[in-house]
Parts: sequence; C-alpha cells; structure tokens
Amino acid sequence: MAEKPKKPSKLRARLPRGLVDRGPAEIAATRAMVEKIREVYERYGFEPVETPAFEYTDALGKFLPDQDRPNEGVFSLQDDDEQWISLRYDLTAPLARYVAENFDALPKPYRSYRFGWVFRNEKPGPGRFRQFMQFDADTVGAPTSAADAEMCMMAADTMQALGIPRGSYVVKVNNRKVLDGIREAQGIDSDAQWLTVMRAIDKADKFPIKDIIQLLGAGRWDGGEEGKGDFTKGAGLNQTQTDAIISFIGDKDAGASMQGADNQSTVANMRARVEGSKTGSDGVAELATIAELADAGGYGDCVKIDPSVVRGLEYYTGPVYEVELLLDTKDEKGRPVRFGSVGGGGRYDGLVSRFRGEPVPATGFSIGVSRLQAALTLIGQLGNKPQPGPVVVTVFGGDIAGYQKMVASLRQAGIRAELYLGNPKHSLGQQMKYADKRNSPCAIIQGSDEKQQGIVQIKDLILGAELASLEKDRDEYLKKQAEAQFSCKEDELVAKVREVLTRHGVNWS
Amino acid sequence: MAEKPKKPSKLRARLPRGLVDRGPAEIAATRAMVEKIREVYERYGFEPVETPAFEYTDALGKFLPDQDRPNEGVFSLQDDDEQWISLRYDLTAPLARYVAENFDALPKPYRSYRFGWVFRNEKPGPGRFRQFMQFDADTVGAPTSAADAEMCMMAADTMQALGIPRGSYVVKVNNRKVLDGIREAQGIDSDAQWLTVMRAIDKADKFPIKDIIQLLGAGRWDGGEEGKGDFTKGAGLNQTQTDAIISFIGDKDAGASMQGADNQSTVANMRARVEGSKTGSDGVAELATIAELADAGGYGDCVKIDPSVVRGLEYYTGPVYEVELLLDTKDEKGRPVRFGSVGGGGRYDGLVSRFRGEPVPATGFSIGVSRLQAALTLIGQLGNKPQPGPVVVTVFGGDIAGYQKMVASLRQAGIRAELYLGNPKHSLGQQMKYADKRNSPCAIIQGSDEKQQGIVQIKDLILGAELASLEKDRDEYLKKQAEAQFSCKEDELVAKVREVLTRHGVNWS
Repeated sequence: MAEKPKKPSKLRARLPRGLVDRGPAEIAATRAMVEKIREVYERYGFEPVETPAFEYTDALGKFLPDQDRPNEGVFSLQDDDEQWISLRYDLTAPLARYVAENFDALPKPYRSYRFGWVFRNEKPGPGRFRQFMQFDADTVGAPTSAADAEMCMMAADTMQALGIPRGSYVVKVNNRKVLDGIREAQGIDSDAQWLTVMRAIDKADKFPIKDIIQLLGAGRWDGGEEGKGDFTKGAGLNQTQTDAIISFIGDKDAGASMQGADNQSTVANMRARVEGSKTGSDGVAELATIAELADAGGYGDCVKIDPSVVRGLEYYTGPVYEVELLLDTKDEKGRPVRFGSVGGGGRYDGLVSRFRGEPVPATGFSIGVSRLQAALTLIGQLGNKPQPGPVVVTVFGGDIAGYQKMVASLRQAGIRAELYLGNPKHSLGQQMKYADKRNSPCAIIQGSDEKQQGIVQIKDLILGAELASLEKDRDEYLKKQAEAQFSCKEDELVAKVREVLTRHGVNWS
Repeated sequence: MAEKPKKPSKLRARLPRGLVDRGPAEIAATRAMVEKIREVYERYGFEPVETPAFEYTDALGKFLPDQDRPNEGVFSLQDDDEQWISLRYDLTAPLARYVAENFDALPKPYRSYRFGWVFRNEKPGPGRFRQFMQFDADTVGAPTSAADAEMCMMAADTMQALGIPRGSYVVKVNNRKVLDGIREAQGIDSDAQWLTVMRAIDKADKFPIKDIIQLLGAGRWDGGEEGKGDFTKGAGLNQTQTDAIISFIGDKDAGASMQGADNQSTVANMRARVEGSKTGSDGVAELATIAELADAGGYGDCVKIDPSVVRGLEYYTGPVYEVELLLDTKDEKGRPVRFGSVGGGGRYDGLVSRFRGEPVPATGFSIGVSRLQAALTLIGQLGNKPQPGPVVVTVFGGDIAGYQKMVASLRQAGIRAELYLGNPKHSLGQQMKYADKRNSPCAIIQGSDEKQQGIVQIKDLILGAELASLEKDRDEYLKKQAEAQFSCKEDELVAKVREVLTRHGVNWS
C-alpha cells in the first residue's frame, strides 16, 4: 500500500462524495420496506442467503454496462497475496459464485433472496450514489419461461405489498433473443453500430419517435436543429433498417405504441419483425409463454411485453424485465410521466456456467431499494413523521442514583426512558429543551421538596405544546393545564406515565 | 489502478480468506438477535443512525491496537481525486465524524445506535473474520460517569434479553485513568515498557499469576521452563513495581482475586494503589460512581469493577468495559471457563474533539454480533432447526398455466408456495425429491386423470416421513397412510392445505 497523506492539524468532518448518512425516519422506512418485500419473496418460496461484501475480482466478472476500462465502476484493491478483490457491484454476480461453489449441496432449482449494500465507483449525481441497497430474488436451475413469468408476477405483488396500486406501476418484459433476432433480420453486423441501436431503443419511452429515428440514422442535435447543442452520433442505419426498428418498437407518436398495446398484439408484431431468425423466434415464443402465464395468473394488465426494454447489464441472455412506476404526474401533453425504473432483472444463463463449465439456467429480479424508497416517499406511502422520543427523567443535584431508579422502573415496564445525561448542573429549562428536541412525550421532575414528600411531577409535553397554542377559552386552558403537569406518588410513576402515553396513543411500534 | 491478472480459462468459485457466506438459519438467528438488541437500546432512549461503509481515511483515524504500520488492519484505496478512503473498521470512528459534521443540529446528549458490517484487513483465524457485524450504542455529550454506568447496565439487560441468565455473564469495568495512575505511582516512564505491562495485565484472567509475574519481569518461556518453547520478553519491572501491579490486579492464585471481590473492596484496593496520582484518584472516583449506580439499579452482581480490563482500542480515555460470557463449562480446577468477550466499550472523550477542536465527552458500547451469535448457538439459545419450506406444486405435461393458478391461489391465501420450476419433464419422483430437500410440508399433484375429474392430490410430507418409520402397527399405518395422501376438489385446495399445515403447526413465522 502506498503512503497516506499527512493528517491536517484540524480534521474536517465530511463524507466522500456519493455517500450519505441516514437518520431514524429513513432507517425505519427501509426496515418497513424490507419486511414487506421479504414477506412476498418468502410467500413465493424463496429462502435467504447472504454473501460478503468482497469477492475476488475475477469471480465478479466485468458486467457493468458501457465501461471502456476494465473494472471501471468497481471498488477494487489488491489483497496481501497480490490477488485483486472487489466490493460487489450487485447481488447477482456474487450469487453465481455462491451457487457454483455449493452446487451439489443446494436443491435445484435453487430459489433464494438476499438484500444488502452494493458499491459502484461511479460519478455520483442526483439520486445516484456510490453505495446503495438492492433486494434480489433468483431462481437458479430453472430452464423454462415459467421461472421468468414468476419473477414478473412477484415483482407486481411486491409493488402492491408496498402500497403501489395497480395501474401505478408496470412490469415491462422484453427478450435479448428478440433483440438479437431483429439485428439478424436487419443484417446489422457491426457490434458498435448495434450498441448504438440498443441505446436508441432504450430511449424510446423518453424521446419522441423523430428523435429516435435520428439516433438510428445520422445522429441528433440536442438543440433540436443542426448546429444547436451537443451532437450525438447515430447508428447510421439505412432507411429500411430504421423503418424496421421503428415498426418493432411501435411509432408511439403515430398512435402505434407497443407500450399501450395488449400483450398478444405486441407478441404478434414482434413475431413478424424477427421472421427468418431462429434466435428471434425462440425469444418471441418465450415472451408468448410469459404473457400467457401472466394472463392466467391475473397479471395481464400489469405485466406487459415491451420491445423497448434493453437493460444495461451485459450478462442477460433471454427475457429481461423492468419495473417502472407510473406516478400520477402529467407531462405537458397530459400523459402520465414515469418516475422510471425501480427494479428489474432477467435471465442470465451464462453467469454460473463461467465456473461450472456446463449450462446452468438462471433468472433473477432485483429491486433498487434506495430508489424505490425515494419514490414511495414521494407518493406519501412512507411515513416520515418523527417517532416520539423517550420519557426524560430530569435531574437536580447529586442524588443521581434515585433518578436512575425511576428510569429503571420505567424501562422495566417496557417504557422508553432515559436519565438526562448532559451536564447535571444544567437548568430545568435546558433539560426541558433537550426533551423537546428529542420529541419526548413527557418529562419527570423531582426537586428536593418533592423528594422529601415522596412525590414526582409529570409534565405532559404533547399537551403542553397544545396548551401553548390555546388562548381564548380560559376554562379549557385551566383544565388542560392541570392535565399537562401534575404530581403523583413515587410508586405511581409507571402507572401515571402510562396514562399519559395512552392519552396520546404513544406506543413506539 | 494497476493492471489486473488475466482471467483463467475456467474460473474457480471461491471466497477470499476470512469471508463467509451465510445460510437461512444463521440469517434468521442474526435477525432475531438484532431485533432483541434494538428493543433494549430503544427502551434506553437510543435512536438509530447509519453511516456508509466508506470514510475518508484521515477521518477514521488510526486507532486499531498494536499496528506498527499506519493503517495496517484497514481496507483502503485511493479515490479518483487521489484522496484515500477506507472501509470502516468499527462503528465508533464513523459516528465521531457524523456527530462532528452535524453537531449543531443534533440534540445533546446525542444518544444513538447502529449496527452493520465492519471490515478488518487482518489475518483471519478460527472465529476471526475480515467482515463481521457490530451493534453499537453511544452517548455523545455526556460528561458524567452516569452515562458509563448506563452503558454497563444496558449491556447487562441486553445479555438477558438474548436469553443469557444472570450469573452466566459479567460486565467488567475498569478505567484507563486508574491504569495511568498505577503507572504514575510506580514511575514507569517508558511507553514500550508500559505497553508490555498492559498486555500482561490483559492476560491476568487467562494465565496463572506466576506467569503474569514473569511477563512483568524478565519474561516467560511458553514451555514453562527456561529454554522450552518460545520466549516472550517481559516488561522488566523491578520487584516493587511487580508487587504493586500484582496487588492491583489481585493474586487470584493466592485467593485474592479482584474478579470475585465485591465492588466496594475492589474500589478500595484500587484507591490505595493509585495514591498520590491525581489522574488515578479521578479514575477511581468514576468507578466508585459506576459501582454505586449499578448497585442502586440492582446490577451490583453483574456489573463488576475489574482491574484487569484493558481493551485494545487506543481512543479510550476513561472507563472501559467488557462483557464476558461465563459458560457452564469447567476447567481442570473446576472453575467456570469463560467463553470470553462478546462486547465492550468505553469513554472516548477525544474522538469527536479531533474535528471540533473543543472537548466532546462521549461513551459507547459495542456488541460483537457475529461472536455473540456463535456463543448463543453454543449454549442452545438460538434455534438452528431448518424452517419448513414452501408447498410445492408439481407439474405434469404442458399446461403450466393451470398449476400456476393453484400456486397463485395458495400464495393469495398467505401460504408459501411454488411451482416446480426444474425441467418440466422430470418424473414425479424427482420432483418429490426436490420437495424433500426444500423441507416442504406438503406437495400438490394433479395428473391428467385428476385434472379431468377436477381434483388434486395432497401429499403430507411430514406425515409421510413419520409413516416411513412406522412398521409394527398395521391399523395405525393404514390410518396414517390415508391422511398422508388424499385427494380433494380443486376449489378445496387452499382449505385442505391449511389443514395439513395446522396439523403440523407450520406457520413460518
């Protein structure tokens, strides 16, 4: 390891870019989401498995999209024995290693789920982080499209379990084989040219068709006309090829969008476009099966065959799917605007085979938990109201042990409670300010007089806050004032605190 | 980044050393533990916060024990902008950065908890991994020993919440200031000499006192006599100094162990040993307060002042504590053998100050989740029986859609279920083998005859397994056989499966 920079005289507390801290509301929301996703995945017969954050770099493979340099996008370092190790960039590549390593011991098909942090050493941007959470399910050793169909239906059930109603999401399904079939049918030999075509197809749901046509042909000016803005070089297809691609994805601006079409007509259109390609026809047949099973399962309205789905990861070999949220926002033309992809997956028959030297069919689905959480927060499906804090027992003078006993008795009764642990010489005002900042439902006060009498004061801080906004009704004010701060015997403390908590429905669950 | 090794022709699926995969039983056990710990910490008024896996290397600091080279023990790499970033090696150093960065917005004292993976780039060994889980609680901005006492009591409550009874664990408390006081009182000026003394003290609960005396003096031969085994160089203390240290930790072999003593006499002994040192006396006074509060809270039997606790991390500045499990195993002399440390912590008043340039008192407690889980498994407090798998719907022939519908109806009723997704041409025997391997409670079978009649077969696999071991009682065998496989109408499927699940108490919770 090379030498490290010298420590500055006073350190600046800051995080490397693309990384974030998370507070109580976000943590609680993630936890609630994870529990709901887990419940669905387990109902579908998946069992948990976890792999560590590191893998050998060669075991992970180089499957991130559009990377020119090897292992660009991956955090890597050399181990003591000179071997390169990398932080996982997704949860699929490590699973392939796990399955290959434990192949004989595992039931086949092997159905498993896992969630955790993944790391990408990329330029962060709005909503793009270098550490984010994924929640994956995979079926390894399942050759038929029934396994892919199940993933799509499970994706739909997961969205609904998370409170996203039917019609507010869509599971879009395509097939790499169908895309290969189009390429074959149109005789597009150059890999570079085909990559540009794929990128253009990928933009079909965001750009108008005339732009896609430019991207398939000579190229497109960002500003809308020649010389305006940046120029994106096109794929250089001829007119016949361009027409074929547009017919394949459907000219949405001419009302021929495949995205709104029913699955049967989309499949029929695809079949016509890949005529003559064996690979393409196989892919269409797989999509037809997925559509049929989705229809039979009652998912025909939310699992949609869609020719514009490409998916970046290079290891996909068959069906690919993407879950998109259709939020209730409209663009200037009054069409629903999509929040975008919150998850996806596909079939990766080659990934386990890299280790085994024999075909191992596999398919998987991954939720971008961090991204989906942002969406759910946006549509108000996740509460972000701060939880009530603990009961705060304030302190006066030296006898901390007595206050400590009160705290212990509250805790033993299952009530969240704490001793004020700041400077014990702080005034009651300072201690109450702390209790407010903690969002405490009530505070306990015992001065020396009260101690002699064996009583404590209970201050209901929620009622106290309401009281501060009451002015007009004097009778109500006085009544509430009496409820907002009252005394009780020391041995009634737990019961009286519980009354205050019940009064406000505090249960911290 | 330097060049990577070439990919071998066939990859070997293996993990870098010191890293492990985790299966369903382990994951479920960790989850149950984490929930119990969380419940205790929240009852004590701590709120969650999470920091990312990476920090700037200089922000983390160099606090791992006994490392000669800088940042030995830490996984580090250079970011695009040439700055060094490191994976966190504990959860305390990142918290210090977080608190410093958000100082004004946080309530003070700031009480927070967090759990997650930490990484150490060390030589792995039995029970030592390069990625492991910690669960921490910290109070920042709390100057008094009441905060340390609370940590110790919370540690005790956590052990009990995890099913470890009183008497099977001890929270041992010492104070760095007291150790400094002994050093001062004995005039041990050399840092290297003092480090060796600390290491000897740290071994006091494992080695006989005669060995400790050797380690404090000239040194010790592993084989027990001169020339036998490896030689460990001692601290080179003189007789007076050695006697003082032994009196401080107590000569357990002469029946004067401080580890069995009550807190008051341990504190009194410490006070005598640090006489003349202001630092030492302050430390003893802090321990006296902790002992008093523990006694008042009813924790006097499990929170024990213990002069032999050292704790490796260099950032501790005051009280340090360690949670040890006393398993029900005896050594050759019939004394309980300790499983060892499963957690600990202490006061680190300097860690936040590094960023703030002003004193910020703080104290924290950390549980080694992975290590504690190993202990709990050992004493049988964590179930490791595999959970029942899902109901498996077997398939015959082409009509997958019909089977898919059965699966969907079971799932909609909240029953874990799956379609057999292996090769659909597999025989019923192969499919049943899979169901056995998944530990399925029952399997669903529908051949073409049954399909025509609108019925399904339900095979109770748990009863089937019992049946296989029954031989003698023919009547019972026949009765059970009828229960173990029976048919019902298609629309009774959910109800009948539920009967089987209820029969065996399967609820997957």
